[in-house]
Amino acid sequence: MALTDLSGRIAIGVDIGGTNTKFGLVNHRGEILAKGTMKTDVHEDVEGFIEEIYKHLEPLIIQNGGMTMVEGVGVGAPNANYYKGTIEQAPNLNWKGIVPFADLMSHKFGKACTMTNDANAAALGEMMYGAARGMRDFVMITLGTGVGGGVICGGKLVYGHDGFAGELGHTIVKPGGRRHWSTGSEGSLEAYASATGIAITAKKMRAEYPASMLNEYSEDDINAKTVYECALQGDATAIEVFRYTGQKLGEALANFVMFSSPEAILLFGGVIKAGDFILKPAKLHMEQNLLPVFRNKVKLVLSELSEADAAILGASALVWANK
Amino acid sequence: MALTDLSGRIAIGVDIGGTNTKFGLVNHRGEILAKGTMKTDVHEDVEGFIEEIYKHLEPLIIQNGGMTMVEGVGVGAPNANYYKGTIEQAPNLNWKGIVPFADLMSHKFGKACTMTNDANAAALGEMMYGAARGMRDFVMITLGTGVGGGVICGGKLVYGHDGFAGELGHTIVKPGGRRHWSTGSEGSLEAYASATGIAITAKKMRAEYPASMLNEYSEDDINAKTVYECALQGDATAIEVFRYTGQKLGEALANFVMFSSPEAILLFGGVIKAGDFILKPAKLHMEQNLLPVFRNKVKLVLSELSEADAAILGASALVWANK
Repeated sequence: MALTDLSGRIAIGVDIGGTNTKFGLVNHRGEILAKGTMKTDVHEDVEGFIEEIYKHLEPLIIQNGGMTMVEGVGVGAPNANYYKGTIEQAPNLNWKGIVPFADLMSHKFGKACTMTNDANAAALGEMMYGAARGMRDFVMITLGTGVGGGVICGGKLVYGHDGFAGELGHTIVKPGGRRHWSTGSEGSLEAYASATGIAITAKKMRAEYPASMLNEYSEDDINAKTVYECALQGDATAIEVFRYTGQKLGEALANFVMFSSPEAILLFGGVIKAGDFILKPAKLHMEQNLLPVFRNKVKLVLSELSEADAAILGASALVWANK
Repeated sequence: MALTDLSGRIAIGVDIGGTNTKFGLVNHRGEILAKGTMKTDVHEDVEGFIEEIYKHLEPLIIQNGGMTMVEGVGVGAPNANYYKGTIEQAPNLNWKGIVPFADLMSHKFGKACTMTNDANAAALGEMMYGAARGMRDFVMITLGTGVGGGVICGGKLVYGHDGFAGELGHTIVKPGGRRHWSTGSEGSLEAYASATGIAITAKKMRAEYPASMLNEYSEDDINAKTVYECALQGDATAIEVFRYTGQKLGEALANFVMFSSPEAILLFGGVIKAGDFILKPAKLHMEQNLLPVFRNKVKLVLSELSEADAAILGASALVWANK
């Protein structure tokens, strides 16, 4: 990257979610020049999806210097295989089986297309434009509806043999523990530390403590946000919900640190809005479970990318990572 | 490595243990040309240790073409810092504090010296001369008195930010579980899957099952080997000791797979002599805890290096890995 003049060059970043898709044009400094969204789930076939995204992007590209300025396309998508450029058996997308998405995009745009899952893309985004600039070894954890992970070793994203490395949300933190609502695995990090997991913990704990403010909400209104509001008002049960969540997160982080010895853990996503309610116990239990040689060294760092733009930025970073 | 003619070139491999040190001369095909051992713990100061190892190695080097043929020195040692070439606070060595071991060796031999811990060195040894030849992504687990780990991603050993990555034996498999006799951590893989851990499990289980053959041994004679002998004779308790050990190992392996998506897990060390008693439950519990996208893909592969020579070979591989 250092040897190439990238001024004026554009990366297309696309983040495919089950419901919505975000897209944008990003320069190598991480500035979003133009962006938009579209529905994912209205497209039964992938070709129609690609036609629509092209229709949205073409005028934006023309306004920003034309297709000759486009360096490439980066896509974050569930179950994306980096090596093959495919989306494989994504449970939350209409397109079943193995979809040769990168080839189709590349054909349509006349540009190379690189794919990975959204948490891996987020890790690249933090390294190129965010809080991990200059770091060569770190672990990214995205804490939202689900829990995702991305691992950077020696300045490169770890894809592994099959291109699916970094599924840190599905590592087991409590063998034989809480059954995951979708994967069926028992005791995964995601089952505890996702927004979904926090709601489950809150519903269990409020049943045990009838005096908790959490009992003033209907079942449907118990979520990470309402638990946070109760915690802010000093509700001991709500505070315990986050403490327990932080403990499980911290235990998982200790294992990640002993695996890859990162300089920092980058945290991103809606769940971290709970701040010290979750971060303090996470730090405590991470340190407690580390070998002495790793202790008091690894920083917990909050993402510097805006939640609205992080997905587009992360996907676009895939383009520059190949330079 | 491919572009350099290494025929006739020699790597010095040194493996430092708390009691004994092994050393040898190895060519780039992994053939040991000469080897020997010496006591580690008789040397109160590291300079005396280095004098003795030089005295042993010098005649062997002269017999094999002389010092000009030596490409470099590779050292496997406890708490070795790859980046700094230091041994840091090793609990089982006489040399306290931070020892600039690589500089001292390099000065004495007039050759570059590279260091890492023994399990990391073992991973390099398997990749260069053993069962992992041609693999670019794998995880090495050494199962002996302790449990060590080494992670290869994209054909390179993962050292991490501090040079201490791959401490897989100290990852937690059972939060709040068995207290480690040395580190004090609770529920680490090493507490269960090392030979030491197996003996602890066996002593607990035989107390619960008075009819077990394990009760015919004195407390001091309960070890991985005697448990294996009882298992071979069909003792249900001894078999259960290995099944439980394999379960804990398998749960840990699932987490490692979801972290780095390896092609294979390489297993080495005395404990794997228990064979299917431990490997079958390990495989079963690994698969059970994996996300579907990883299932039935990752091979468990036994080391192809002889136990007597693996430490020297692994250390020598550090020299070629730098080419």
